[in-house]
Amino acid sequence: MNRTDSRETAADLAADAALLEIAEGLGLSTLLDRASPFTHHEVMAAADVPESGATAFLDALLCAGLVERGEDPHHFLPCSDMADRRYAAGYLSWALNANRPYIDNATSFLREPAAAGAQYQRDGRRVAVSSRWIGSYGFYPGVISEITGRKPRRIVDLGAGAGGLLIHLLTALPDSTGLALDLSAAACEEAERAARRAEVGDRLEVVNRSIESLVEDHSPVRDADVVHAGFVMHDVVSRPDVLDGVLRACRASIADGGCLVVTDAVPYVADPRERSFSALFTYLHSSSMDVRLPPEEEWRAAFGRAGFSDVTCTPLRMPGSRMFVAAG
Amino acid sequence: MNRTDSRETAADLAADAALLEIAEGLGLSTLLDRASPFTHHEVMAAADVPESGATAFLDALLCAGLVERGEDPHHFLPCSDMADRRYAAGYLSWALNANRPYIDNATSFLREPAAAGAQYQRDGRRVAVSSRWIGSYGFYPGVISEITGRKPRRIVDLGAGAGGLLIHLLTALPDSTGLALDLSAAACEEAERAARRAEVGDRLEVVNRSIESLVEDHSPVRDADVVHAGFVMHDVVSRPDVLDGVLRACRASIADGGCLVVTDAVPYVADPRERSFSALFTYLHSSSMDVRLPPEEEWRAAFGRAGFSDVTCTPLRMPGSRMFVAAG
Repeated sequence: MNRTDSRETAADLAADAALLEIAEGLGLSTLLDRASPFTHHEVMAAADVPESGATAFLDALLCAGLVERGEDPHHFLPCSDMADRRYAAGYLSWALNANRPYIDNATSFLREPAAAGAQYQRDGRRVAVSSRWIGSYGFYPGVISEITGRKPRRIVDLGAGAGGLLIHLLTALPDSTGLALDLSAAACEEAERAARRAEVGDRLEVVNRSIESLVEDHSPVRDADVVHAGFVMHDVVSRPDVLDGVLRACRASIADGGCLVVTDAVPYVADPRERSFSALFTYLHSSSMDVRLPPEEEWRAAFGRAGFSDVTCTPLRMPGSRMFVAAG
Repeated sequence: MNRTDSRETAADLAADAALLEIAEGLGLSTLLDRASPFTHHEVMAAADVPESGATAFLDALLCAGLVERGEDPHHFLPCSDMADRRYAAGYLSWALNANRPYIDNATSFLREPAAAGAQYQRDGRRVAVSSRWIGSYGFYPGVISEITGRKPRRIVDLGAGAGGLLIHLLTALPDSTGLALDLSAAACEEAERAARRAEVGDRLEVVNRSIESLVEDHSPVRDADVVHAGFVMHDVVSRPDVLDGVLRACRASIADGGCLVVTDAVPYVADPRERSFSALFTYLHSSSMDVRLPPEEEWRAAFGRAGFSDVTCTPLRMPGSRMFVAAG
């Protein structure tokens, strides 16, 4: 980073993130992410705010360059680099909004982690939205490329949330089927609705269950060509028997030639490109979420114990993130 | 901003801001801002956390490069670019932490601004801390250089907060006296304590009063060589008679050869370096604080009505900020 840049980079990024968070809260993200122009009236309708309010916020977006006027003066177009700016905003929003309870109560978490953890929890929606913004360039492209390249007939996503990744994959692979597993009933319902909207509902099964449950019941991963687990497997690493049981369930159930794709973060990466965000990510997981992220060698050892003989590890763009592909 | 930078700038800035906010909450900012090394024990004592907690947080600061090990392995040194990184963090912290109630309730502010304004207020401390971090390079250097260059014998700061600017000026100008005026009783008490700590208490008068009160009683600005008002005069611009009365009080009371220095933001600046942050700053003041920032010409007209004949306007580093010097 060039800290003597003549541009005020931090001010630009902070303003973008705040304005995109406001837009998200007003229900305008869909308009801002689409390629076609939108109108002042659509802003009023989507946000359910009076004309003056829609004008005021559109003026801010125009001045910030997040939106431009179309040839028709009543038409507005998202800026051509919206995807880049939303990706950048994701880091700010994850660090300073989604993790707000951990930042504001840092002293309590260092004094009495268990009590603080019981009292102060993150808002799942803020975590999901900011993670999605980071993931747009931070890890989804690598994962999607890896999985679609394998042309899997059946894909299982562990910790699938609202099903975004699977719906994307099933849309790209029209002959494939998928199973979304998540602990959150609300996320599962959202995944079912989203799959119907995307017209892949008949090819997507949604299972409201914990990852741990795979130890006893392998059926959700049975005959999968790809099992994916993004930033969820670290939740079970503190219980090695559970981690080993889940990995063994995958190894035993995956179809011939299939693989397990684990996207996760490794701790305290020293690389200059990764060190700052990796430090925050590692510290918050350790101090506030009781998650000790395993380093690459521990992941490799765990895959080996479960019987996987061919394991690769690839850094993705999000600092500290790694994609493990376990096969064989 | 180079958005295709091989560094992950947004991730770096987000992590720095979150870690510096955590440090501030733990009471460690003083250690991080001083030039001399500090010890693990000082971190434990300042934060009042157990040894393991101090170690965990120091590990994060070390990995992020915000702190380095000294030659003595028990000594820690703040990174050499701490001041730059704290300045950058200021923008993120102001936008996404200090303004959190405005972001989270943006719809309410656009629907019913008065009711929302009564219900959702910012935390004064978060505003003060993030503004101070921005100001460190964003506006204080320009203001300090302008004022000290004039070698004023008496300096008055309107909306002085905890007195930071005046204490800095009185330390640099050992023959000068000052008066700090602020609406907040808590800020005034803090200013008195800080002045005593800095050993300028005998030269600093603290007055707990509103800026509006100057219309009726000129005494706080009487015989001042410099009257400064930083980001507070805009609070009275919605009442032109009050603005004019305050400016006239200053004009009538300032010593011969003296001046009024107003640091404030102008609205919706189109310059590429300023536009994003200026858009956020203008929008939040208008939508959530009922403050319509006056453009440069309106400021000039108001100074003229009050009798100032010599007015200059200089952009400071914070996007959208301007320093007006009114004399004559």
